[in-house]
Amino acid sequence: MANQAVADVGLIGLAVMGENLALNMADHGFKVAVYNRTTEIMRKFIARENPPGGLVGCETLKELVAAIKKPRKIIILVKAGGAVDKVVQQLFEAGVEADDIVVDCGNSLWTDTIRREKEYASRCKFFGSGVSGGELGARFGPSMMPGGDPDSWRHLNPIWEAVAAKVDAKTGKPLESYVAGKPVIGGVPCTTYIGPNGAGHYVKMIHNGIEYIDMQLIGEAYSLMSNLLGMKAPEIGKVFEQWNSGDLDSYLIQITADILQQRDPVHPEGYLVDYVLDTAGQKGTGKWTSTNALDMGIPANSIAEAVFARCMSALKEERVEASKHLKGPPLLSPSYTGNREELINAIRDALYCSKICAYAQGFQLMREAQKEYKWVLNFAEIAAIWRGGCIIRARFLQKITDAYTRNKSLVNLMLDPYFNGQIQQGQANWRKIVSLAAANGVAAPAFMSALAYYDGYRSARLPANLLQGQRDYFGAHTYERTDAPRGKFFHLDWPEQTRPQITIIPGSGGGH
Amino acid sequence: MANQAVADVGLIGLAVMGENLALNMADHGFKVAVYNRTTEIMRKFIARENPPGGLVGCETLKELVAAIKKPRKIIILVKAGGAVDKVVQQLFEAGVEADDIVVDCGNSLWTDTIRREKEYASRCKFFGSGVSGGELGARFGPSMMPGGDPDSWRHLNPIWEAVAAKVDAKTGKPLESYVAGKPVIGGVPCTTYIGPNGAGHYVKMIHNGIEYIDMQLIGEAYSLMSNLLGMKAPEIGKVFEQWNSGDLDSYLIQITADILQQRDPVHPEGYLVDYVLDTAGQKGTGKWTSTNALDMGIPANSIAEAVFARCMSALKEERVEASKHLKGPPLLSPSYTGNREELINAIRDALYCSKICAYAQGFQLMREAQKEYKWVLNFAEIAAIWRGGCIIRARFLQKITDAYTRNKSLVNLMLDPYFNGQIQQGQANWRKIVSLAAANGVAAPAFMSALAYYDGYRSARLPANLLQGQRDYFGAHTYERTDAPRGKFFHLDWPEQTRPQITIIPGSGGGH
Repeated sequence: MANQAVADVGLIGLAVMGENLALNMADHGFKVAVYNRTTEIMRKFIARENPPGGLVGCETLKELVAAIKKPRKIIILVKAGGAVDKVVQQLFEAGVEADDIVVDCGNSLWTDTIRREKEYASRCKFFGSGVSGGELGARFGPSMMPGGDPDSWRHLNPIWEAVAAKVDAKTGKPLESYVAGKPVIGGVPCTTYIGPNGAGHYVKMIHNGIEYIDMQLIGEAYSLMSNLLGMKAPEIGKVFEQWNSGDLDSYLIQITADILQQRDPVHPEGYLVDYVLDTAGQKGTGKWTSTNALDMGIPANSIAEAVFARCMSALKEERVEASKHLKGPPLLSPSYTGNREELINAIRDALYCSKICAYAQGFQLMREAQKEYKWVLNFAEIAAIWRGGCIIRARFLQKITDAYTRNKSLVNLMLDPYFNGQIQQGQANWRKIVSLAAANGVAAPAFMSALAYYDGYRSARLPANLLQGQRDYFGAHTYERTDAPRGKFFHLDWPEQTRPQITIIPGSGGGH
Repeated sequence: MANQAVADVGLIGLAVMGENLALNMADHGFKVAVYNRTTEIMRKFIARENPPGGLVGCETLKELVAAIKKPRKIIILVKAGGAVDKVVQQLFEAGVEADDIVVDCGNSLWTDTIRREKEYASRCKFFGSGVSGGELGARFGPSMMPGGDPDSWRHLNPIWEAVAAKVDAKTGKPLESYVAGKPVIGGVPCTTYIGPNGAGHYVKMIHNGIEYIDMQLIGEAYSLMSNLLGMKAPEIGKVFEQWNSGDLDSYLIQITADILQQRDPVHPEGYLVDYVLDTAGQKGTGKWTSTNALDMGIPANSIAEAVFARCMSALKEERVEASKHLKGPPLLSPSYTGNREELINAIRDALYCSKICAYAQGFQLMREAQKEYKWVLNFAEIAAIWRGGCIIRARFLQKITDAYTRNKSLVNLMLDPYFNGQIQQGQANWRKIVSLAAANGVAAPAFMSALAYYDGYRSARLPANLLQGQRDYFGAHTYERTDAPRGKFFHLDWPEQTRPQITIIPGSGGGH
């Protein structure tokens, strides 16, 4: 065990993410002191996985702190929430000093990170970093979104750049993590300094929110092929395989192609997805994104629809019962009698256009959050570090990087000439698919909400004028006028035919 | 001023809601002690509005407390949030006793009411009551949703029943509040005991969430008539007038008919709505409802879409700019060349079907919340007290009361034979309108999301099986199987073609 400070970095929490990130760092030549609350887990891990001797097993936090060179860099990978604060407190007791950098790499709520940085400022440098890519990402190269003090970042930078996924400098395509068993040298690492305090965790949350809608859109495309064309899983898988060689080229499309063609382990004559229960779980980051959108007043309706679609899926028993009573339009199978290839192409276009809107929503959220928290986010770089390592990695992200490189202050992704052009090309098909979904009774909340987002955003005039009329009528909430400057409020003494009139003082109404 | 305890009830906060509720109580024979932080406002109110002598003006809270008979009943009508706690503390200092009932009638967050009841339990009986109907409702009969200790309710009951709006016992239709200048006696009062602690404020929040979507649906109907048929405001107003004599008969439809036919005060040759700016405000209760839906995992997507539609409307300058660059389908004016009457009817059906889904979502939220907070909510009664006084009052609500009277444990409103029948009758038109909106580029997020809700809820199988496959693939989140009991989790060692394989322990993944 460790008697002197030999380790470059410490890591607390040896669940799969922690173990894999430790091994990743060790592979890149960093000596990692590791600790787990249950010592046995640490011991087994070291016994199993320490061939290169890059790990230092520590049985106590005191031992861990003593094992790391100063200023210490200590990564926490425990369950988000109170557990993080608990570990930080224990670290203080174990000897962590004011110059030491304590990095929370869990899926923490960004406001917790902001709070923690402030709260612990006199006792350590608290830092937050989002890590995306699941277990495999952690092991072989995740996308990393660090946020905190720039000074701390200088210390963390070499480790982060070493362990992060790499993409090709020219094409932006993910590189192999290992060649002949050795980590790849070169390529552009999928990490960059995001901003102060909670910025890294915020951006990670947005990543996850986008992941929710990305997955829901793929699900709806699958459902439409299945319901409108009567296609079977492996056939649909082949379609996704094709799509993966075009604009939709991405990790999620690629694994979807695999998944749909996967035979069932129990019934090898059948396909796995046909035996998987259709009730989706969730762990909260999509919900956080939606709540944050509501709080900031930014329309991110498609991300919220993706979360609600998971909620709907969870009501399995209710749905099965309801399906017996609530009728839809007569569903032929296949219900679509037109050209199959054309329809599949139209679904592809609907998916791509919806995806643009979904990402637009995510970037609108970041744009607003940076105002709220006084961050200066670099959207081109954020898209760039999502090109590899993370779940939403996609060729598409290079296009977003290009868009924000062309125009740093792009107001909405849809306004970029490339994306606008893509929507123009695809929108007739997108509209056709939404119409078909509606006519044939196939639930497509994400396709629909993305279209409503697009049509709402491009409407110089929305029916909210009537709504303001209603609010002024029943609650004296006042309205603004098209022929008066913004910020000037008007109120009309509306006639209520069935009630006596009373004097209304503008702006004092209830909570509508 | 008051020297002895003569008042039946006290009221703190003389903004419009407070003044009107005080006058309402006085009209019904209750002597009301009134107080306002700024004494001048109280003095002016008394000078202006105290002909029957039913008000007792109090310059201090001590005076107020002294003026009320024991056990005191004191209504607080101040801004929701910290102001409520502040007033309660001041009341303690002013002599309020443990048996006194302090009633928060503001738009408070239900969790605050739960907290306050507990926190103040030893010093007063804290009670929360939602009040809906705006200023006019407060004055002439609101819908009141009281929640708290049943014992306190016995004391409040006579006042609440007296001042609440009344509906006809047989038809459920709202009665006139005053005949020949005197308050109406008889009729069924629009108030009932909702449940303990925060139940009243919770139900009021749901009322407001439903109000958001009700208003958005009306806005979309207006927008479709305007954009598809080129109809002008007063023409559309006439249509709403017609609708108001059918199933859609409601306060919001009625005032919409008025508003659309209202001439503009500045340009009397034109119509007001055409000059009202299309940026809707909001005060938070719709947002609370949506956040609560996300927290509880209940699909209330249409309510959230209504909130996001307001957010979208607020981006006026962005939309005006975007409208120059983001093209839609070619819009003829009128773009619809079919039968006009048929299309208007179809819009009506779309509105009615969507409305059923929206209310279904609101009642699903209440169903879930009662589990969470151990309330026993009476949905028939809740719908009944919304028949009069409040903003969403409608003939429709009698149908909901009927539905829950027929079947207390109705799982979803859409499953009630009446509402199911209405949807069956209207759904072809509903689907047609969503298709037309999509094809013609008219934003209709609420109509669309309601349809997606209906089609999702009646789907025995949704594409969430694929989603679970994805989550198991990239995060080892495991899945359930259709051929295995619920709660049994499976994991597949998915092949990753481009990466070495590692051992994955099920269920330990990131926050997706």
